[in-house]
Amino acid sequence: MSAGHAAAAHVISAEVGETHFTVHIGDGQIAHLGSLWAERAAGEQALVVFDGNVAGHAEAAAASLREAGLRTVMAEVPPGERSKSLSELDRLCREAARAGIRRADAVVAVGGGVVGDLAGFLAASYLRGVRLVHVPTTLLAMVDSSIGGKTGVDLPEGKNLVGAIWQPSLVVMDTATLDTLPGRELSCGFAEVVKYGLLDSPELFDRVEGWPAPLPGPAGPLLDLIRDCVRHKLDVVSQDERETGLRASLNLGHTVGHGIEAAAGYERYHHGEAISLGLLAALRIAERIRGLDPAWRDRTRTVLERHGLPTRLDPEVRTPDILAAMGRDKKADSTALNMVLVDEPGVVLLRQDPPADMVISAIEELRA
Amino acid sequence: MSAGHAAAAHVISAEVGETHFTVHIGDGQIAHLGSLWAERAAGEQALVVFDGNVAGHAEAAAASLREAGLRTVMAEVPPGERSKSLSELDRLCREAARAGIRRADAVVAVGGGVVGDLAGFLAASYLRGVRLVHVPTTLLAMVDSSIGGKTGVDLPEGKNLVGAIWQPSLVVMDTATLDTLPGRELSCGFAEVVKYGLLDSPELFDRVEGWPAPLPGPAGPLLDLIRDCVRHKLDVVSQDERETGLRASLNLGHTVGHGIEAAAGYERYHHGEAISLGLLAALRIAERIRGLDPAWRDRTRTVLERHGLPTRLDPEVRTPDILAAMGRDKKADSTALNMVLVDEPGVVLLRQDPPADMVISAIEELRA
Repeated sequence: MSAGHAAAAHVISAEVGETHFTVHIGDGQIAHLGSLWAERAAGEQALVVFDGNVAGHAEAAAASLREAGLRTVMAEVPPGERSKSLSELDRLCREAARAGIRRADAVVAVGGGVVGDLAGFLAASYLRGVRLVHVPTTLLAMVDSSIGGKTGVDLPEGKNLVGAIWQPSLVVMDTATLDTLPGRELSCGFAEVVKYGLLDSPELFDRVEGWPAPLPGPAGPLLDLIRDCVRHKLDVVSQDERETGLRASLNLGHTVGHGIEAAAGYERYHHGEAISLGLLAALRIAERIRGLDPAWRDRTRTVLERHGLPTRLDPEVRTPDILAAMGRDKKADSTALNMVLVDEPGVVLLRQDPPADMVISAIEELRA
Repeated sequence: MSAGHAAAAHVISAEVGETHFTVHIGDGQIAHLGSLWAERAAGEQALVVFDGNVAGHAEAAAASLREAGLRTVMAEVPPGERSKSLSELDRLCREAARAGIRRADAVVAVGGGVVGDLAGFLAASYLRGVRLVHVPTTLLAMVDSSIGGKTGVDLPEGKNLVGAIWQPSLVVMDTATLDTLPGRELSCGFAEVVKYGLLDSPELFDRVEGWPAPLPGPAGPLLDLIRDCVRHKLDVVSQDERETGLRASLNLGHTVGHGIEAAAGYERYHHGEAISLGLLAALRIAERIRGLDPAWRDRTRTVLERHGLPTRLDPEVRTPDILAAMGRDKKADSTALNMVLVDEPGVVLLRQDPPADMVISAIEELRA
């Protein structure tokens, strides 16, 4: 903790739905969590939800909260996607009840996407809604899952099938937590960063394209990069919280990506790796439907490869299985398969039900 | 089903939060459910949630939906409060997933408060929110639980501790379902009707006071009575969906009532019976704090007794247990015990932390 770190932090004020909140991005921000929360909080307690991989960060967060005068209760969940279940939610709700958590108190989610999604749904549903603070400790959670209010758990029938839209009251991103993150997890987060480059503007794409290996990269520019990804997502989500239109653009690379992830049984590819492949497939389809300049796909492939992300599809993951998994996505969400396409970075459109042969050949070309 | 019935139905247009919906109240309305839903629905399927006590009504609702061109999937839950659990929610979510329920499809809750609360939370959380239709089949569900959007389940640590605020897209009340309702359940619903009389106006109180036994009473005036209770609740809820202020007025009689219900282990007294006692205690406290004319309490007691509701507290339900249960309510919701008081019917105020001796003596006087 140092005043210098705090001074260098970015602060973004956001308004989504009826919720106003701030996002703080800086090196060493966890040490300031308590004072940032105490500035706005009426509550007296915090339930800190975390997994064993980030026990140290969770303890630092709790210490900062206690220093600011809050009582803290620690709730550890097992690491990994299997914790995103209704039975784990049940267990956490009972912990909240025994701790006497009230509506003005906070659930503080310290960790990556799994902890954030689970603790977020806990905050949305316990007492029909208590305050939520996100302390994302992975690059993926910082640029993506801690922003936008999507919370939820999985069913055996599919991922994220049960949940709520629930906005945090505060988000504190401490880039120091990225220093100990495994390289594979950093890469996965970077796949979403590449997505923002394509969605946002040629200017952001250029910065993403030039990002040096190894991740996470130089400290000052890293804060700016995360800030600009967060700003892009907040801008979209504030216009379309419940994904009736524009928000679907954030799914660039996710239509085919989810299909690959599911067809490979969620083991072979982590989420960001599947998105890496999905981005390339989406760009290929955009070339055929929209006449996107193929140079963008070449440049995207180069930057993905530089940061250790897959750009060739494992031949053992079969195309029919990918298509079947994409069909299940379609069934749950709407009557149509929605594909996000780009004309160039920053010019995005949604295309319902793209021709099946184009989707199939884009997947096949990932094997080349 | 008859056109005559349909013509006599009341229709209330409501707007709560961002949700617009209509409430239909009439004799034989279930037969019109399908056409009412098809008028507004984009979806193709309905998941009909019900318990064994109302299997006939659920089948009638499903038949009407099928007649209007929807596919229906039946999801039966065991009758009784124990179905309000996260494990039952889990089971229903998996049924929804296997049935391929989409966001535009409807969860249709046919039954009383338990089914409505559980199915409502299912609708709120499956795919982070699908459409919800309430078909309340008890007087309590018609005048109270189907209106206002509170949904949820219980924990071993307390009732309604997990849930969501989720408004229905349509509410269809068929008073024919009341004809076969056990007398005790009708009485429980009537306790809430008496509450609305006290909250709304001397005029509504007069109509409630003059209501003849046995329940449910004469058909035409019954539709008007239910309509006016629903209107009162909608008026309050549309101003304060998340209960930050005004909505708390609907808890008249519930502070002490919940305490009695919990202290008696949810067996000795059904909810409405506990509210009957709670209303009398609240009026007694209002006499002492606000100078309420004691005649209102006498008149209230008379109408409660006429409809078979308890006005004397079982000596085996101990005052310290009631106070302890009230304290647990307080802990979960806010830092203060909130008591709703009336100066006269229609003039309502909230009082935080009323003097403990007044609460205790009001409970003791219920034993006299």
